[in-house]
Amino acid sequence: MNPPAYSEHGLFVCFEGGDGAGKSTQSRLLRDWLVDRGRTVLLTFEPGDTEVGKELRRIVLDPATGHLSDRTEALLYIADKAEHVDHVVLPALARGEVVITDRYVDSTLAYQGAGRTLEVSEVEGVARWATADLRPHLTVVLDLAPEAGLGRFDGRDRIEGQSLEFHQRVRQGFLDLAAADPDHYAVLDAREPIEEIAAAIRARIEPLLEDR
Amino acid sequence: MNPPAYSEHGLFVCFEGGDGAGKSTQSRLLRDWLVDRGRTVLLTFEPGDTEVGKELRRIVLDPATGHLSDRTEALLYIADKAEHVDHVVLPALARGEVVITDRYVDSTLAYQGAGRTLEVSEVEGVARWATADLRPHLTVVLDLAPEAGLGRFDGRDRIEGQSLEFHQRVRQGFLDLAAADPDHYAVLDAREPIEEIAAAIRARIEPLLEDR
Repeated sequence: MNPPAYSEHGLFVCFEGGDGAGKSTQSRLLRDWLVDRGRTVLLTFEPGDTEVGKELRRIVLDPATGHLSDRTEALLYIADKAEHVDHVVLPALARGEVVITDRYVDSTLAYQGAGRTLEVSEVEGVARWATADLRPHLTVVLDLAPEAGLGRFDGRDRIEGQSLEFHQRVRQGFLDLAAADPDHYAVLDAREPIEEIAAAIRARIEPLLEDR
Repeated sequence: MNPPAYSEHGLFVCFEGGDGAGKSTQSRLLRDWLVDRGRTVLLTFEPGDTEVGKELRRIVLDPATGHLSDRTEALLYIADKAEHVDHVVLPALARGEVVITDRYVDSTLAYQGAGRTLEVSEVEGVARWATADLRPHLTVVLDLAPEAGLGRFDGRDRIEGQSLEFHQRVRQGFLDLAAADPDHYAVLDAREPIEEIAAAIRARIEPLLEDR
């Protein structure tokens, strides 16, 4: 295993949190703000933003897939990450762009590790190998009690449809990851007004832009 | 990582080797011989002998898939193994059956490790995690120079269609794995007559049946 890798080119920002926490809203607001400042921004997501990733997303999220071994599920998410990093994230960073991804390795550690109760350190070893240990310069965790998030959508996929206890473990999983590396995380209360959250994110991003 | 796990129940036999080496012929002959001796035998294969495995097999073998990151390809094969072990192999062993699989972990170490030139020890770490480190009691390697095997079929899938050098690395990968653990491997020359190979396999299997 190589040491953690922070790209020397571009800026890699990740949004994490439960469904309904506002990740896509905030990632679009951040994208617009960066574009207004003249940056080239790639807005992307996991799982599913590559050709094979689309098929993997369907398999892991479609309720018709039914039961999968927990390790199978984790490996499918991680295969999506390998493809995403090699074919989307790294090329954009090499071009000096800002890459904003809606979900990354932490989601697999939180959902397939903490949520499914696989050993998080073992899932992390596989996920770091798959992604050449590429880390976001900043991960924004939009924190929300699952009771609140679950009310924000109607359609339930294979993951959303898990128990409240599952989603509580996922939430704690994200918070534990953030607590272990505060320099590279911003944990924000997803119940705050959208514009206040966006301002807090910009305040963390601004210093990262100075030397890039 | 747990220590290597050899099932205390049933008997787990694996056939490995290049395409065209006679794995399916020999696994069927072994199955028939075991059934004649009153054994319950499950004949299975990787990739693709589960519901999700069928979809993964299509993705990794269909030439239309095109280029995949080497790590993506390895992870898709390994996801198939996780599902196969949990839902097919382990349940049959728990019932005391003989499980004969056409390909297992060694194929991924040989094709995605040695063949694609990923670090074999890293691929092995992921594959062992995925399969709870379950090992075959005996792996039969049907050894054949790739020049000979490649002539035995017409249709080329994504893996078959790789270069001769790729297939030479794969062959050496299988031989290296066998050389490192001779108690659990039988390496047989695939050019020998079918019945002679079958007899050599039975000679290695017979003592394994005594206490099962």
